[in-house]
Amino acid sequence: MKISVDVMGGDKGPAMVLPGLNLLLTRQPSAEFLLFGEKEKVLPILEGLPDLKAVSHFTHCEVTVAMDDKPSQALRSGRGKSSMWLAIEAVKKGEADFCISAGNTGALMAMSKFCLRTMNNIERPAIAAIWPTVKGESVVLDMGATIGADAQQLVDFALMGGAMARALFDLEKPSIGLLNVGVEEVKGLEEIRTAGRILRDLEDHALDYFGFVEGTDLGKGTVDVVVTEGFTGNIALKTAEGTAKQISSYLRSAMTRTWRAKLGYLLAKPAFDRLREKMNPSKVNGGVFLGLNGIVIKSHGGADSEGFASATELGYKIVENDLLKKIKSDMAGYDIQMKQEADQAQEGTSK
Amino acid sequence: MKISVDVMGGDKGPAMVLPGLNLLLTRQPSAEFLLFGEKEKVLPILEGLPDLKAVSHFTHCEVTVAMDDKPSQALRSGRGKSSMWLAIEAVKKGEADFCISAGNTGALMAMSKFCLRTMNNIERPAIAAIWPTVKGESVVLDMGATIGADAQQLVDFALMGGAMARALFDLEKPSIGLLNVGVEEVKGLEEIRTAGRILRDLEDHALDYFGFVEGTDLGKGTVDVVVTEGFTGNIALKTAEGTAKQISSYLRSAMTRTWRAKLGYLLAKPAFDRLREKMNPSKVNGGVFLGLNGIVIKSHGGADSEGFASATELGYKIVENDLLKKIKSDMAGYDIQMKQEADQAQEGTSK
Repeated sequence: MKISVDVMGGDKGPAMVLPGLNLLLTRQPSAEFLLFGEKEKVLPILEGLPDLKAVSHFTHCEVTVAMDDKPSQALRSGRGKSSMWLAIEAVKKGEADFCISAGNTGALMAMSKFCLRTMNNIERPAIAAIWPTVKGESVVLDMGATIGADAQQLVDFALMGGAMARALFDLEKPSIGLLNVGVEEVKGLEEIRTAGRILRDLEDHALDYFGFVEGTDLGKGTVDVVVTEGFTGNIALKTAEGTAKQISSYLRSAMTRTWRAKLGYLLAKPAFDRLREKMNPSKVNGGVFLGLNGIVIKSHGGADSEGFASATELGYKIVENDLLKKIKSDMAGYDIQMKQEADQAQEGTSK
Repeated sequence: MKISVDVMGGDKGPAMVLPGLNLLLTRQPSAEFLLFGEKEKVLPILEGLPDLKAVSHFTHCEVTVAMDDKPSQALRSGRGKSSMWLAIEAVKKGEADFCISAGNTGALMAMSKFCLRTMNNIERPAIAAIWPTVKGESVVLDMGATIGADAQQLVDFALMGGAMARALFDLEKPSIGLLNVGVEEVKGLEEIRTAGRILRDLEDHALDYFGFVEGTDLGKGTVDVVVTEGFTGNIALKTAEGTAKQISSYLRSAMTRTWRAKLGYLLAKPAFDRLREKMNPSKVNGGVFLGLNGIVIKSHGGADSEGFASATELGYKIVENDLLKKIKSDMAGYDIQMKQEADQAQEGTSK
């Protein structure tokens, strides 16, 4: 497995990325790396990680995309020469199985679209996240790539998310829900209702359409895949992150107020550590760009090395389980069914 | 203060509502009630609450709006005769200062719009919620009344939310944020950007426009008022509720796994109780319908009596602090400013 890495991405760049890759190597010893970055910043750290160095090929790049560059700006200054661009291009050239970056999301998506292009039948890409739930994990998309998706795009997201759930969770027929509001009066924007009808009609297909789900269903794990357009998905993800932080802060202050609470905390510390582990965003780090001719993983810019290793391992598993092939065959099956239905409708009309 | 109450609303109806009102009475002894409901179900419980009975006037209604009635159905069968309708109508007639119901949200909004009508300058109503934050509380709107608001509607929501924050939080100039996504590439749907420009230009006004905020800012309490359209607001609210439940469930299972954790839990129990209190949704129950010619409060249908009392007290405070008057004067000030600017622009053109 060859992984191309934008070593300069993230708030801490090489100092976070390289130890993260080294950690991944202990878990996935067959990984090899194509590293892209500024040699002055990368090589001194790489020297200290001989195991990683032994399985890496380093390419120096003059240009680094800044965390606050606008996508258009990043494309202009970084196309063909930045560490981000070259890492993506390695996937296009077939030199790497997937690419990972903790850099600026907008720039990474713009460059990925420009370099890899969207798949044949897909109009717009999506960013999928792994959402921890009471039952385990779900795939949730889109996290912000496509604002205001139409019905067909929502259906594409459902198919791609379903393929990802099959690749990651070892499920034959993942259940799919469309995120919606529960107020009866307004239930279903037109595009969500239409997407629901199309998904319901999909037969003999590798997914099980559940229906509409609400915000509360995300944490419950009601379905394996939750589909929404990028604006709502991004707000939901960040609201959940914010709520988790808020409760951690309440918990911390509750456990330090009195000597009894402090003592109780000490006794229950292993339990609190388990809880912290469960709530640790590092563990579920990694947004997967879906719908492009190649896999690109976005790690959180503020992730630590552990988080970067998790995100890289997510890419590893996805590629190992042939996600792109699964998406292509699902989309092809869907297109054949749509075509047959159109033909039948045509026949019905001409009779 | 006279409060009209749809006693039949909520999953448990009178058995939850009447003890809730009785609880409110201990906190707000000057409250009086106009109760609407089915006499067979209301009177036996009211008999057992003599203090409440002494300050209540009961009206029997044949019809009860069901929790799963569609709004159109509820209007057809319940207009003029259901407990929900009559409670709202008491506000219209000036017999009550505000109305409260734990009934079906869609039906309550449809009836409220039909009976009270929207205010002069307001095109669409909003539902505002009180959001607990690390710093205290914020007003967040819209929670699902208006799906896909345009720029002008978002500005209206900002003004109404600002008036509500002034009425509740004793602030002179509440800070206002527009909920948006942080991905630079897509930052700002057009209507949100336009609303931001209008709010930024509002001078000498009783609000302080902060700019865009993200999902994580909700729990942080970055601003006093967070404005979004109803689809996103509803998803954000329910995602936060779901995340809080999910973490409670993690916490519960962590604290019962080992004897050390159990003992620690016992010692820290008062701290946990404080935490539970903080995370208790009953404490922040109550959606406020804004933009109508009268105040209607929606309590959560699954709320307990404590939660219903909180929601009622929210209405009490809002009316006590003259929310409607504040909204009207803010809207009038805004209209004058808009008109002046339009005149100036006109003058500029004609020169």
